[in-house]
Amino acid sequence: MRWWGWGEADHPPALPAHALGYLRERVGIAPRPRAPVALEQVRLPPSALDHSALTRLREILGPAHVRDSRAERVLHAAGKGYPDLLAMRAGAPPSAPDAVLYPGSRAQVGAVLDACSQLSIALVAFGGGTSVVGGVSSLRGAHRAAVALDTSRLVAPVGLDEASRTVTAGAGTGVRELEHWLAARGFTLGHFPQSYEHVTIGGCAATRSAGQASTGYGRFEALVRGVRASAPAGPIDLAAMPASAAGPSLRELLIGSEGAFATLDELDLRVRPAPEASRYDGLFFGDFASGAAALRELVQSGLAPDVARLSDESETEVSLLLSPPGVRKRIANGYLRLRGYGGGCLAIFGFEGQQREVEYRRALALGLARERGGLALGASPGRAWQRSRFAAPYLRDDLLSQGVMVETLETATPWSNLIELHRRVGGAIAQSLRACGTPGIVMCHVSHLYETGASLYFTFFARQREGEELAQWQAVKAAASEAILTGGGTITHHHAIGRDHAGWLEREIGREGASALRALKRELDPVGIMNPGKLLSE
Amino acid sequence: MRWWGWGEADHPPALPAHALGYLRERVGIAPRPRAPVALEQVRLPPSALDHSALTRLREILGPAHVRDSRAERVLHAAGKGYPDLLAMRAGAPPSAPDAVLYPGSRAQVGAVLDACSQLSIALVAFGGGTSVVGGVSSLRGAHRAAVALDTSRLVAPVGLDEASRTVTAGAGTGVRELEHWLAARGFTLGHFPQSYEHVTIGGCAATRSAGQASTGYGRFEALVRGVRASAPAGPIDLAAMPASAAGPSLRELLIGSEGAFATLDELDLRVRPAPEASRYDGLFFGDFASGAAALRELVQSGLAPDVARLSDESETEVSLLLSPPGVRKRIANGYLRLRGYGGGCLAIFGFEGQQREVEYRRALALGLARERGGLALGASPGRAWQRSRFAAPYLRDDLLSQGVMVETLETATPWSNLIELHRRVGGAIAQSLRACGTPGIVMCHVSHLYETGASLYFTFFARQREGEELAQWQAVKAAASEAILTGGGTITHHHAIGRDHAGWLEREIGREGASALRALKRELDPVGIMNPGKLLSE
Repeated sequence: MRWWGWGEADHPPALPAHALGYLRERVGIAPRPRAPVALEQVRLPPSALDHSALTRLREILGPAHVRDSRAERVLHAAGKGYPDLLAMRAGAPPSAPDAVLYPGSRAQVGAVLDACSQLSIALVAFGGGTSVVGGVSSLRGAHRAAVALDTSRLVAPVGLDEASRTVTAGAGTGVRELEHWLAARGFTLGHFPQSYEHVTIGGCAATRSAGQASTGYGRFEALVRGVRASAPAGPIDLAAMPASAAGPSLRELLIGSEGAFATLDELDLRVRPAPEASRYDGLFFGDFASGAAALRELVQSGLAPDVARLSDESETEVSLLLSPPGVRKRIANGYLRLRGYGGGCLAIFGFEGQQREVEYRRALALGLARERGGLALGASPGRAWQRSRFAAPYLRDDLLSQGVMVETLETATPWSNLIELHRRVGGAIAQSLRACGTPGIVMCHVSHLYETGASLYFTFFARQREGEELAQWQAVKAAASEAILTGGGTITHHHAIGRDHAGWLEREIGREGASALRALKRELDPVGIMNPGKLLSE
Repeated sequence: MRWWGWGEADHPPALPAHALGYLRERVGIAPRPRAPVALEQVRLPPSALDHSALTRLREILGPAHVRDSRAERVLHAAGKGYPDLLAMRAGAPPSAPDAVLYPGSRAQVGAVLDACSQLSIALVAFGGGTSVVGGVSSLRGAHRAAVALDTSRLVAPVGLDEASRTVTAGAGTGVRELEHWLAARGFTLGHFPQSYEHVTIGGCAATRSAGQASTGYGRFEALVRGVRASAPAGPIDLAAMPASAAGPSLRELLIGSEGAFATLDELDLRVRPAPEASRYDGLFFGDFASGAAALRELVQSGLAPDVARLSDESETEVSLLLSPPGVRKRIANGYLRLRGYGGGCLAIFGFEGQQREVEYRRALALGLARERGGLALGASPGRAWQRSRFAAPYLRDDLLSQGVMVETLETATPWSNLIELHRRVGGAIAQSLRACGTPGIVMCHVSHLYETGASLYFTFFARQREGEELAQWQAVKAAASEAILTGGGTITHHHAIGRDHAGWLEREIGREGASALRALKRELDPVGIMNPGKLLSE
């Protein structure tokens, strides 16, 4: 993973030239590209771990698994949120771990937690490192030092219970690697977040991840059946029960706990048979409200596609611009046929499963969509979406190099509030960008359907205010968060709380709700070493 | 509700004469019927609430809503578990509330919690009073007195969000009453526990209820979207979000908290369109394992009936005995056709929804069942089951009058462990009954299907050991619980923890898991007034 951005170091530029022209015209770009600094130029304080602490950690893990090279410390200093990328590209991370630990067993994790509790060392569990909300930033809180606990060696055991359709794996197992392992045995986890190529199952559980096909396969919390976790106070082992009435759900306490209560060491996950067929279609709706109404009817009738996305008018325009020429032409025809509607919205429906089942479900869903004014565009827009489904984060790196701020944020709300919340949050972002003197493009899509509501995923672009990049982002982020919470949304649908939303969580769950979580943290992590500054504001 | 048993006072006897003969022969009955004592004979200590405490509570609620008559105190002394019924029928409840409170608003609930915290009065939230695990027994713990907080006036507001398919209602709203209210508007909650005619939505949420159609509609926790609760430390208001990644799920902490953390005041529940058609079929499988394998295949193929029950050989025999003659004849034909299988197992499949959908799903499910050796018996066994679906608790009263111990207990486990756990728990119960000198009938059914596993619901009958009824029950209950936990099941699938499982919970969730729940309780209920002795053992 690039320490200053996304993905493999040798990934080619992702931004087509014509898109750059569009952005130059619409929001403005920097006069010249801004490259990230070289690794050697990153300002990094000397490690705050003294000799005896290092020795203790090396005794537990072995010298090879306690690393404090520049490359290790920089790579584990932050996640991939916009403020993280700003800081890393400038070579000025606000913090960095004093060492990176690679435990290879639960016993080693437990010993590390004991040592860190005794030595007052903050510990940041680090899976794929893809957090976009500051969840893995190496903050030390009131402690003398901070270490990253990299879970990449926590990959055993991997075991499949075919009858019960569960797979057991170490928390550091990559989602992509597990998917490949399962595919060879005829199964799928069905979890495809945009960060699919990098995330771990532990990271997905710790953050309540949702993937692109979660409408069909369920959010990550629906996949987690059993959890083995290690808190400083001791281990928690929850077996994989299909259901239980044995009190409040501790599993649902560990899921979403973002490394602030315990490390997640091992998970039992529900799997399904690998699909024998898949079919992705593009559709066009006259406007966002009628498209959303069709999606609502689909999911409430039990006919939801496994992947169901609906872009608003603004996102449709930008998507078109970035689409391959063949797809653009196809959709332009749609535009023409729908001229009377005035603009329109692109949707992607994806179906996976047995061949006959895919055909049957697709026919019913497209039929219902047509009755609701949807226009089927065939497979090419669907294929185009599939090809680029994990590519957007690369695009972001290119935009930052061009001096363009790009950020995403997401929420969910009941169906009866969806259109109004879309208007309010989109309006708040646009207004805030104008107030910064950098009017931008604000776009949104629905991508996760539930019987009672849906998600809204906003993306916005604007010219960076040079020298004030962080303040500019903070202003827009605050305006959007305020609009979400006053508008009846949740502060996050699948990005989690991390550092960026920690100040907003109490607004959503109330004073007593936040106190309950703090009481839990005190019990499980008495010294407060676990991921300080995340999830719960101080 | 009868204070000494189940349901309406004037309900006719439910035990057919031929069934009584069967029991006399198989397990033995008492030489003469044992009636419950008269209400006047119930031993009831004087109320421990002094004048100033009563005055304070009456100031908050109004005099009419603080009641301490004999009838009120006796009715709220216990739930409907076997130990409860033993004690109540004998006129010797181990405890009783010193008063029964009827708050009419959240503000009144909050004021009552404040007063009880200050005055050291234990508070037992009381919905329908149907707990079969001692969940509403009026224990006072270390406090000077105990009151029942009856939620029957907490029924407002009731509001329907048709677009989002959620209904909002006060926690004291009856499930049956809400179902009727929804039916008049074209919707259903779809929650039908055996206690359907008496339970409240608050009670179902507090205990993680599952109903007979929960395979189709989802367990009660799947229906709960938003919760407003009152803890002694303060209110917790969680809005009805379709999904969220905002940290650990506080909703899943309140669900299943059994009145030990907070009262549940108001809920937002997911609803569905009222079914326009329903169809219930009987089927016969050669044995329990092949029936269970068929159910597994159905749920894992997305073809599960909304109601799916499979009785083991023993329960099939008893069900047949209790069936109307027409159904018996029909199933006897099944027996004949299946003679080669040696005995067999009755299953009930129920489908609800739109007419075409019911037909389509039924055809697919029966087709798959047939391929797996299932024999369709037509609609009459299904109709017979439907008619008596809420009647079993009445039967229990009649059996107790005949000196027959009857008890039910339930668990859930992954599919790969289902048959083995069935064998172990059934064996442990039978062995324990023999060891008591009262060999019995042990029977079981699967009634809730999940992709990763299923429930097992055991019923057993034996002659009561006169004068040692409670010790006899304790021995069998302990043997069954031990077999469940060592055998890889959960201590309860839908009856909850209450008093009877409080000593077992820590075995399931571990020392640190139990400590986490205790820490939460300390935060939310610092004086420990909320339902002491339930959920968490001292």
